[in-house]
This record gives sequence, structure tokens and C-alpha cells, in this order.
Amino acid sequence: MPLIRISLRAGKPTAYRTALTEGVYAALRETFGVPEDDRFVLVHEHEADTFAYGAGYLGIARSDDLVIVQITCNDTRDLAQKRALYRRIADNLARDPGLRPEDVLINLVEVKAENWSFGNGEAQYADRARART
Amino acid sequence: MPLIRISLRAGKPTAYRTALTEGVYAALRETFGVPEDDRFVLVHEHEADTFAYGAGYLGIARSDDLVIVQITCNDTRDLAQKRALYRRIADNLARDPGLRPEDVLINLVEVKAENWSFGNGEAQYADRARART
Amino acid sequence: MPLIRISLRAGKPTAYRTALTEGVYAALRETFGVPEDDRFVLVHEHEADTFAYGAGYLGIARSDDLVIVQITCNDTRDLAQKRALYRRIADNLARDPGLRPEDVLINLVEVKAENWSFGNGEAQYADRARART
Repeated sequence: MPLIRISLRAGKPTAYRTALTEGVYAALRETFGVPEDDRFVLVHEHEADTFAYGAGYLGIARSDDLVIVQITCNDTRDLAQKRALYRRIADNLARDPGLRPEDVLINLVEVKAENWSFGNGEAQYADRARART
Repeated sequence: MPLIRISLRAGKPTAYRTALTEGVYAALRETFGVPEDDRFVLVHEHEADTFAYGAGYLGIARSDDLVIVQITCNDTRDLAQKRALYRRIADNLARDPGLRPEDVLINLVEVKAENWSFGNGEAQYADRARART
Repeated sequence: MPLIRISLRAGKPTAYRTALTEGVYAALRETFGVPEDDRFVLVHEHEADTFAYGAGYLGIARSDDLVIVQITCNDTRDLAQKRALYRRIADNLARDPGLRPEDVLINLVEVKAENWSFGNGEAQYADRARART
């Protein structure tokens, strides 16, 4: 269910971008209980003049390697799960592609389960909730 | 009011992308009661290594033709309207540009009416609500 | 905390895009109380066939210079602050890069403070709230 947008400066090799995609997805699997194959990731590459960031906001030293991860997901996770997700994404991306934890910015946009259609024009999550009751 | 982001793999002709834009807009007109000319659509094209998707999530067989439609809209529609929208988008895009219904993924992000300015630095929807009361 | 996406037609010089970025950020500083250096802006440039807009919706005459500003921010501002933000963005962008106020469309997506990690895998705003109580 999560729809993931990853934004970064252009110029990294394919393997680098794949590591970002896989690292964020793995973190969602491990901390948010996201099912296998529920993996929808859009990567946006930016030139210098279309990617602006505060290099020291909150005392964190960011670099041009900053990766901004915006995740649209269901509004069913508590704060402990969100903390675990942030930690796991930073850990995964530190391992591969070797990102400094300072360079990982994450934002969650939460929506209702009925706000998704995964294909065939159906509201799969709403149908599932109805089947359960 | 809806702001529509359509994401797909690069390489389709202009007419294909126009059909996507028009098909989603027409569906919003027909099922969400969106006014004429309320049409704001951003299309993002992706190379293979910036567009990752679960090819079989929820038992739906997706292909590289997958189109991801993210719609930011007011939080005023009920589940029946959302179901009708999903169905209509899939139907419209099946007719033109000929998309398989399995390749249509839709996500709604709902916001308050006061969260829009359509120009001139004004909050047109908030003003309209106040005029009504 | 705001994450800003600015979408416009391709072809403007760097100084033009920088003026957009700075103008929106300054407006957030002035009306939303956004801290210094809390500046994260992604600019998306679009060719004609990936950027569709209603040229007269709500009686506002838009042109190909239309700029669509989508801001993800915390859900802590009231309507008066939102009106002030819209006005200030339009004013700032009219001054530099000289945008017609009709060509400024703004949308806010509001999220909880706990929905952000600004680096190091931590939930800085959630931690701050806990420190305060």
C-alpha cells in the first residue's frame, strides 16, 4: 500500500538508486508489516537548481547526497512503529548504498484504507474491511 | 480542485499521455462532480530504474505499462463515490489509450477545502464556504 | 518542516526557478513561522504534454507560466494563517520572478508532527513534543 517517492540529486548509478528503493521497501516490510510484493516506488532525480535543502536545519549536517523519502500509507501505525521505520530506513541506507544518516529525510502522508485502488478499478482494501465485518 | 499526478514509464507518444490526462479528468467530472475546467494534471515519466512496482501484489498481474495516479482532492466524498471513481478511471483508460485494468493504480490524498488557492493569493473554497453561511 | 514541490513548464532560467524557491520559502517563514534553514524544495519541470491546466477555472485567467506549489506541512495552522500564506506567496512571486498572481496555484497537504524524520533516523518533532510535556 505505500506509495513511495524518493527524490535525490541526479548523477548516481542505477545500483545506487536500486539500493535506495530496496532499502526503503525492506524497512517498510520489517517495521510497518507491509506485505511481500507491495512495492511501488517512484524515483525523481533533480539537478542542483531544482533541489534545495537546509544544510543545517535542526543541527543536522546535510550534503548534496540528501535523499528525501515521501511515503503515502494507511493511517494505522502508531508512533512506536513510525520511530522504528525511520530508524530502519536510515540503517538500511547506511549499509547500502552507504548513505550518511544525516542525509535521510523522511515524511509520511497518511490516508484512509479506502483511498487505494490497486488495479481493476476496485477498492481492494475497502472490500477486505467489509469482508471482515 | 483535484491536483492529479500521473506516473508512468517513459516512451509513450503524446497522444497516449493526453488520453491518460483526459481519461482521469473525465472520470472525476462524472463521479466526483468536479466542475468543468477544474483540470490540473502533472505527468511524471520514469526510466526503468526509477519506477519499481510489485508485479503481482494482491494477485493482480501488472506490466511495465502500469500507470500510477495520485489525486489530491477535498475530503468530501464517500466510499461509494470513491468506488465509482476507481471503476470509471479504469474503464476510461481501457477505452483510451487502451490500458489493461490491471495496470491502473490509484491513490487519493484528501485535504480540507481551505487548503487550496487557485490564484490571486486567495482561498477560493474557504471564501465560498463563508459566503454560504 | 514543510516539504515543497514546485511544478512548472520547462524552459525558465536558473534564476527564475531560484526566485520561486526563495519566494515560497520566505512566505512560509513570514506567515507560518517556519524556522530558518527549514527549507526543502523540489522543483519539477514539465514539457507541454505533461502539464495540463484549466485555463479559466473559477474565472482566473491562467497562462503557460502557471506554477503549482504543493506544500506538505504540519496540521497546526488556522485559516487566517493559510490565507496569509497564499497572499504572501502570490506577492513574493509577483515581485520576483515577476509572476502574474493568476498563475500561482497552491495546495497544502497537512500531516502530524510525528510524520517527519529530518535525519539520523529520528522523529525530531515527536521527540520535541515529548520533551515539552
